[in-house]
Amino acid sequence: MVGGSVPVFDEVILSTALMNQVISFHNMSGTLVCQAGCVLEDLSRHVEERGFVMPLDLGAKGSCHIGGNVATNAGGLRFLRYGSLHGTVLGLEAVLADGTVLNCLSTLRKDNTGYDLKQLFIGSEGTLGVITAVSILCPPKPRAVSVAFLGCPGFSEVLQTFTTCKGLLGEILSAYEFMDAECMWLVTHHLRLASPVQESPFYVLIETSGSRAGHDAEKLNDFLEQVLSSGLVTDGTVATDHLKVKALWALRERISEALSRDGYVYKYDLSLPTERLYDLVTDLRVRLGPRAKHVVGYGHLGDGNLHLNVTSEAFSPSVLGTLEPYVYEWTAEQRGSVSAEHGLGFKKRGVLGYSKPPEALRLMRQLKALLDPKGILNPYKTLPAQA
Amino acid sequence: MVGGSVPVFDEVILSTALMNQVISFHNMSGTLVCQAGCVLEDLSRHVEERGFVMPLDLGAKGSCHIGGNVATNAGGLRFLRYGSLHGTVLGLEAVLADGTVLNCLSTLRKDNTGYDLKQLFIGSEGTLGVITAVSILCPPKPRAVSVAFLGCPGFSEVLQTFTTCKGLLGEILSAYEFMDAECMWLVTHHLRLASPVQESPFYVLIETSGSRAGHDAEKLNDFLEQVLSSGLVTDGTVATDHLKVKALWALRERISEALSRDGYVYKYDLSLPTERLYDLVTDLRVRLGPRAKHVVGYGHLGDGNLHLNVTSEAFSPSVLGTLEPYVYEWTAEQRGSVSAEHGLGFKKRGVLGYSKPPEALRLMRQLKALLDPKGILNPYKTLPAQA
Repeated sequence: MVGGSVPVFDEVILSTALMNQVISFHNMSGTLVCQAGCVLEDLSRHVEERGFVMPLDLGAKGSCHIGGNVATNAGGLRFLRYGSLHGTVLGLEAVLADGTVLNCLSTLRKDNTGYDLKQLFIGSEGTLGVITAVSILCPPKPRAVSVAFLGCPGFSEVLQTFTTCKGLLGEILSAYEFMDAECMWLVTHHLRLASPVQESPFYVLIETSGSRAGHDAEKLNDFLEQVLSSGLVTDGTVATDHLKVKALWALRERISEALSRDGYVYKYDLSLPTERLYDLVTDLRVRLGPRAKHVVGYGHLGDGNLHLNVTSEAFSPSVLGTLEPYVYEWTAEQRGSVSAEHGLGFKKRGVLGYSKPPEALRLMRQLKALLDPKGILNPYKTLPAQA
Repeated sequence: MVGGSVPVFDEVILSTALMNQVISFHNMSGTLVCQAGCVLEDLSRHVEERGFVMPLDLGAKGSCHIGGNVATNAGGLRFLRYGSLHGTVLGLEAVLADGTVLNCLSTLRKDNTGYDLKQLFIGSEGTLGVITAVSILCPPKPRAVSVAFLGCPGFSEVLQTFTTCKGLLGEILSAYEFMDAECMWLVTHHLRLASPVQESPFYVLIETSGSRAGHDAEKLNDFLEQVLSSGLVTDGTVATDHLKVKALWALRERISEALSRDGYVYKYDLSLPTERLYDLVTDLRVRLGPRAKHVVGYGHLGDGNLHLNVTSEAFSPSVLGTLEPYVYEWTAEQRGSVSAEHGLGFKKRGVLGYSKPPEALRLMRQLKALLDPKGILNPYKTLPAQA
């Protein structure tokens, strides 16, 4: 997404692919300890067989490594329910720039002895140390999972549906995703997926995960009755069967793939105040006019996270010039984040200043100098180039 | 507990008591922004009136400041459900040793722009900067809260009850606390509280918080039926009324106060593998014999957190010599933490090495030197004295 793991000049590439062993799993606490090169989907399978789930899930699960997930502080589809890796990662082992092995591979939920050093490495994109092993808390596997896929007549209804759903679904709500009509067009045309509901300006995917199917179904039905009768939702479908659940999720998860078949893609991953999440999309459609093939908005609405994507036939400096720095300035004005979950990597390191003050950048540079004085760890990434 | 906020030599005391204003509260996201001197209970009231709860709660809520809670990474009674402050604190403002105001007071759930600097200050006990404002994510206020207070015939039954309860209560479980018979003796004798159940070797307090009272009651009843019929629990009572809930919580929350009326108290706050949580208590009763008035164990079993307390008529070097370093060595052997939630402060800074390797201590010292080169921020605390 941002080229965080792509070498650009003279880097030495380090692969952790062979460090793919589960070290331990504790059945009472749900604590998994594993090497950094384990593939997320393999870990999911490992813990699901034991009655737990990984606290994170994302489209790239079939290939991404847990070490990379932690290094980039991956967000993904379960963030709404289980929160950030800063909370669910219990410990890690990292190799520092001078070769020191820093063993903070604790499996304890609570440990207030000195500074919480592991936090430094979560989300620092490999620029402060190389994560070699991870200890992570897995929540119990929900006994019942349901997905509702709904059509909404406008973005204001998407927001009101979210408020209604938080109230009526409460603790069983595990995802609230949205996509606009153009996203649906992309996945139905480029990937030949079928829309399960009537054409609508917006679509919402709601997932519930609970311990008792009957209770969950009652909550979900009451919610659907309310949003359908009040007109917040105009059409919808519900799935509890594993394959149908997967098919509904595919509509949302495969948008990125559909975009890549549409042309050159300009990608933005923004955190914004939920109420204003879609304004930028509408605004950019007007600004770009026919120069853009598609301007689409989708993402983790429940977390205030918008994926804004624009496609054009081929790369166009004029489109880029209209998008940047406009998108970053607009986001900064809302006190949003110019990178919600993708990190800065190589491509976006120059825009850090839109979301962080100069004092923060100075302290980041001091930390980098302290931990990697020779600049050998993932160089040219995350922090802006020095003037 | 550990003297983290107590001046010992030549310190200048800084009070944030007048910085007690709520800056903002966002009704859709539940994000609270406030100054560091706000009292936790006042904040709880503020957000509860708006349909949310604070993600942390602890015995000292009537006097503790949110800035101190964050600086010490307070755990407390809601940790099991809402997790660590490393996950729920969204941003903070801190004043660095050189007077720089570091504004990381973000209200975004997701922000991956550069290093997550706020994490440095969470749990560093004021030794790296002075927290002046906090932004924190508040979960929706549960519509129904129930508390079950149960008697168990042994510690093994306490553990099996925990496993059963995680399975049957699932997502509505919000606390699993335990206390032994000696704790009950202390609160009934010193504080004149009445035990609501028959005398038992162990007691368990289970709290559920959910969005639908009927569903929660059904789950709780099924759980109680199973643990009572299988003999894991021998007696129990359930409360949903606010005052009765409070009275049951008081039995657990006021143990610390009862201990202080019993004599001189030696306090330990340990993280241990749940299965072995109580072994140390039994072991120490034998080792201390009649030199101790009481050796008690209680705490947040659901988080693997034991509060081990010993009382004697007056301070006794012989009792202390039996306890230390034995307690720390025993904990280190189990790869536990010698300070689960209380921090190290002044009294326990010497024992950091039992839970962290030398490489970690070295990096902590480097961070301290970077952020506070003159050693003016909460000196003599957290890190061990230099040899």
